[in-house]
Amino acid sequence: MCVKLIGIKNIPMIGQGDDVGTIIIEAAKSEGLEIMDHDVFVVAETVVSKAEGNLIKLDSIEVSEQALEISEKTSKDPRIVQTIIDESVEIIKVGPNFIISETKHGFVCANAGIDESNVETGFLKPIPHDSDESASIIRTTIESATGKNVAVILSDTQGRPFREGAVGVALGVSGIDPVWNRQGETDLFERELETTTIAVADELASAASIVMGQAAEGLPVIIVRGVEYAEKLRSTTSNIKPILRPKKFDVFR
Amino acid sequence: MCVKLIGIKNIPMIGQGDDVGTIIIEAAKSEGLEIMDHDVFVVAETVVSKAEGNLIKLDSIEVSEQALEISEKTSKDPRIVQTIIDESVEIIKVGPNFIISETKHGFVCANAGIDESNVETGFLKPIPHDSDESASIIRTTIESATGKNVAVILSDTQGRPFREGAVGVALGVSGIDPVWNRQGETDLFERELETTTIAVADELASAASIVMGQAAEGLPVIIVRGVEYAEKLRSTTSNIKPILRPKKFDVFR
Repeated sequence: MCVKLIGIKNIPMIGQGDDVGTIIIEAAKSEGLEIMDHDVFVVAETVVSKAEGNLIKLDSIEVSEQALEISEKTSKDPRIVQTIIDESVEIIKVGPNFIISETKHGFVCANAGIDESNVETGFLKPIPHDSDESASIIRTTIESATGKNVAVILSDTQGRPFREGAVGVALGVSGIDPVWNRQGETDLFERELETTTIAVADELASAASIVMGQAAEGLPVIIVRGVEYAEKLRSTTSNIKPILRPKKFDVFR
Repeated sequence: MCVKLIGIKNIPMIGQGDDVGTIIIEAAKSEGLEIMDHDVFVVAETVVSKAEGNLIKLDSIEVSEQALEISEKTSKDPRIVQTIIDESVEIIKVGPNFIISETKHGFVCANAGIDESNVETGFLKPIPHDSDESASIIRTTIESATGKNVAVILSDTQGRPFREGAVGVALGVSGIDPVWNRQGETDLFERELETTTIAVADELASAASIVMGQAAEGLPVIIVRGVEYAEKLRSTTSNIKPILRPKKFDVFR
């Protein structure tokens, strides 16, 4: 049993209006890489946000009272704080150098996922408005062009509570369920499994991150090939919601 | 750029006293799989705990007052609660069906990582006493036999705050730093990276989990081959500590 993490070379710098799905197909073709049934494409959210023109000009941001207050506590640029507030439904924790919030998508993360890396100076890049829809557009483009069933995961790199270092996580999915519910399956001793749900979309995003890198490597799209459960978890109506813990079950809020 | 996740077949059921490193070498040999420089071996902590005889007989556990109290709140077997208390330095949160604690190793997780899966009925399996040392023994066994530089990561499957579903995480490392500090590196626009530390050991554990499965597949050892940073992060004195956030920096306690 072997799974491959294949970094697609020749993905050009993405700009507003670019068709990411078509760019992926052409880049794969240019290196003689054939797309196969049940390939899982992990796409860095950065390229999708850029293609969708989802950039905010720092100079255009009007700063509120609340943003100024949080800015003082966090030593962050008040314009960045304002954007974090605008992208969030709840500010959960504020500290000397961090803001943890729940984004309008339902992600609990630092700085509402907004970053300045890999975007032009003077701009901020929030995460895509509808990551599942963005993933779906890429999936249907690839499927139409190739006739193969594939899955697409939009990925980001985020920190976690309790553990240092960031890891790849999924922001959006299409063509695959993000969580594998294994209830009823048994272990080697024929007892029911204790860990019955696996966050497969996050594991796939973390795996892709090994190849993707975060810096100037320029490998924003990774094919995860040979994933045994990709066929079983195939879904054309999936979304990221099952991976997001509802606030009422969140013991850390 | 291609990374392979290779599940080693022919790993037999592990019992107390087994030499896991030697078993891995023999299983790889039996399927004609050559071990290569900078291969990263991700080993399910279950097999190591079993080899080390790290099992607790349920019948032998004396239950304290505190365990009875927590047992009532959580509807958990008081003997399991007692073992969680014994394995922990701090009980952090208790709820209707969960206990979150900091283990004596420094892991913040549910049930102190104790499970009953894949162990004989009537026994509990805590996580290894010293996961780094366990990883180190396996690494040196493989290195002595093959003359190759390899890394070993002991992995477990754990739930997380905020996100549903469990993912593979690292409990111990040897031969590789668990965190990659990329401070000073630049992005595509030659600006310093914002996300400067990557929890590579956790990403490798999550990647391996894609192949490992949690149930009766019997693939407890995965080789991650072709990891570009494995050489750069080579260390024969590494341990898991850098991936554990000290309590004083933990904003959720």
